[in-house]
Amino acid sequence: MILLKNISYLDIEEEKIKENMDILIEDNLIKKIGKDIKSNRAEVIDGRERLAVPAYTNGHTHLGMTMMRNLADDLDLDTWLNKKIWPVEDKLTDEDIYWASMLSIVENIKSGVSTVYDMYYSMDRVSEAVIESGTRGVLTRGMMDISGGGDERIDELMELYKNYNNAGNGRVKIVPAPHSIYTCSTEYLKKLINIAESFDGVINIHLSETKKEVSDCLKEHLMTPAMYLDSIGMLDLKVIAAHCVHLTDEEINLISKKDVFPIYNPSSNLKLGSGFAPIDKMIKSNIKIGIGTDGSSSNNNQDLVEEMHIGSIVNKAVTLDPNAVPAIEILKMATVNGGALTGFNNGVIRENALADIAIYDLNSIGFTPKNNLISALCYSSNSNYILDLIVDGKIVMKNREVLTLDEEKIKVKVRELTEKLLNR
Amino acid sequence: MILLKNISYLDIEEEKIKENMDILIEDNLIKKIGKDIKSNRAEVIDGRERLAVPAYTNGHTHLGMTMMRNLADDLDLDTWLNKKIWPVEDKLTDEDIYWASMLSIVENIKSGVSTVYDMYYSMDRVSEAVIESGTRGVLTRGMMDISGGGDERIDELMELYKNYNNAGNGRVKIVPAPHSIYTCSTEYLKKLINIAESFDGVINIHLSETKKEVSDCLKEHLMTPAMYLDSIGMLDLKVIAAHCVHLTDEEINLISKKDVFPIYNPSSNLKLGSGFAPIDKMIKSNIKIGIGTDGSSSNNNQDLVEEMHIGSIVNKAVTLDPNAVPAIEILKMATVNGGALTGFNNGVIRENALADIAIYDLNSIGFTPKNNLISALCYSSNSNYILDLIVDGKIVMKNREVLTLDEEKIKVKVRELTEKLLNR
Repeated sequence: MILLKNISYLDIEEEKIKENMDILIEDNLIKKIGKDIKSNRAEVIDGRERLAVPAYTNGHTHLGMTMMRNLADDLDLDTWLNKKIWPVEDKLTDEDIYWASMLSIVENIKSGVSTVYDMYYSMDRVSEAVIESGTRGVLTRGMMDISGGGDERIDELMELYKNYNNAGNGRVKIVPAPHSIYTCSTEYLKKLINIAESFDGVINIHLSETKKEVSDCLKEHLMTPAMYLDSIGMLDLKVIAAHCVHLTDEEINLISKKDVFPIYNPSSNLKLGSGFAPIDKMIKSNIKIGIGTDGSSSNNNQDLVEEMHIGSIVNKAVTLDPNAVPAIEILKMATVNGGALTGFNNGVIRENALADIAIYDLNSIGFTPKNNLISALCYSSNSNYILDLIVDGKIVMKNREVLTLDEEKIKVKVRELTEKLLNR
Repeated sequence: MILLKNISYLDIEEEKIKENMDILIEDNLIKKIGKDIKSNRAEVIDGRERLAVPAYTNGHTHLGMTMMRNLADDLDLDTWLNKKIWPVEDKLTDEDIYWASMLSIVENIKSGVSTVYDMYYSMDRVSEAVIESGTRGVLTRGMMDISGGGDERIDELMELYKNYNNAGNGRVKIVPAPHSIYTCSTEYLKKLINIAESFDGVINIHLSETKKEVSDCLKEHLMTPAMYLDSIGMLDLKVIAAHCVHLTDEEINLISKKDVFPIYNPSSNLKLGSGFAPIDKMIKSNIKIGIGTDGSSSNNNQDLVEEMHIGSIVNKAVTLDPNAVPAIEILKMATVNGGALTGFNNGVIRENALADIAIYDLNSIGFTPKNNLISALCYSSNSNYILDLIVDGKIVMKNREVLTLDEEKIKVKVRELTEKLLNR
């Protein structure tokens, strides 16, 4: 049991900060929120000069790509993927992916993230890493069949689902993930839709990331990417659709009527020169959007706090409207929408929600003076202002030290393994 | 004397990282760079797992605006300035500006900044703050005459120049700064040009920040803003021109032939919905650009490291070209161009340059693995990776603790004074 005493917290549903409250955590749940809560058994955390926010959901990443961080910058997605990333990826071992994921998880924890939506391979090892770390993951095996091997990947996925879905006290979920429309045949996509239906009705895909993807799709299928996916029945599932940079108005209208969560990856979309996702339009169409960092090879970090900042302000310049995508909308993407898209009962500080909470130091420079804490979270914070992270009712980071994983050992391992990888 | 032993450093002129070098600092200069430098008298700093970069220049800010941080967000420049900021500014005291500037300086130091280019008022108190902090400043009194008071401001400026130019062991310079073309009459601008000539031939102004500024200027002067300034002779001075968001191709061509330094303020331009400055075009026209945070009321932080990251990647999406504004170009803006635009002999790690050096921890997550340190500085770093800052040969920050100023006391003061200010 943990008792956060006299703390301010972000009530994301009411869109306001509540001051000087007590929050009691029992087992893995937020048991009670109120004034003057007493408990003899609870570990008490002094909440004065602290701000509790729902721990963040990183809605799209590739934890296992850390070894390619800063390896191939200033390149377009096509060149970056085909010439630089995929040749190195071909040489990655299970062990590499395990340690790379461990480092990414540390980085996510240090930016207040309790939950990642991760697409990659060797996902059994990624599952182990997530379980060890005490955090949550919706872990999706990236699937493709254009260069063969499609069926083997399906076998792997079935095994993964059997062994890891709901593992780690329910902290791990397994979801099928066709990598993209340009790496999967229509037949294969249909197979994966069927498998997703037989699992939990959820599917994950990269969608409409680049102009090239859209024009190739138009050529091949005579439809834009979301329309094509709808035509083969995918949009009748719950779809977690990463990027969505080049959605047309017609597609925005379509997905606003479906259970589709676009995931906004501003840093990656900017850095790869993919373009500006129509976030303002999507919000105004009442689409629930998530936000993610993407992998460290295209971001090049896993800092969701910086992602929120960039994600907000860029849209104001795109629309020439400083009211576009205000702080509170970005905070929703990382919190309550995160809970909705993963299906974990988190992303809110509310009684009976999962106890996933990030605690900021209000004595930080970015919170000085304390004019508007919601603005501060988006516009003047950085991840180093987050002192503690509670996930599933347990303290995973205390005073910026990750308690569940050995950060120093992981960094040494990643350096050693990267050197071996690049010399293989 | 300080000896940095076995350190990696960024040679910004050769655009590469040099490894395992010794750097000897004597008085306020970099005395010697080489291998196996010995000194009995020097304080030795172990440079293994460290990266030295030229300390950054924040090319445009308003240190004194910290109390308006997070006070008025999600508003356009015009509303923000006229309805929110100026009414509060009217009530600011000298004391407020002094303490607000102190906090901004702490924040600048903590993101590796040795030198600020600051435009505001009560600049005698800002000068005192800069001198106390051990950092450098080109301090410019924001001048306007549209609501009267123009001559009084000139008297103040003359006094300021007399008392503070070259103060603090040469760490302070005073430069005249007409606030903008929309707050100064043509006659007043001409007066200030004459004064700038009688000082050191340098002038500072906000230029072409919003579309409104451009269209108003076209209406009034039948010219775009830079053409108008050229027509009255200002561009024959050395001009530090903040923002330059809406420069036309004709203006870019003009300033490429002049001694004009546009200052890029990406966060502020994005957040206020001002637009995207044509950075890629300016670089390709061989214009030397600086980079700045702008004030904490529009940014809302003073984090130059984040500014570099945002400043680079945004341009790749604007141009749909991931090669646009690569890491090294952004690093030049913050370092060698910074030295050129302030006229301080810093911004480079080179023998006989001023000893202004920021030291990064290479054991940080964003530098793991160490694939490309120049990429890492721009794309995966954050300011918390900067451990130490040396300015003018003295250690101003050690292991993230600012030695010259009392951070805790300053934060308390700023909170107290802000409360009084907003209740006045």
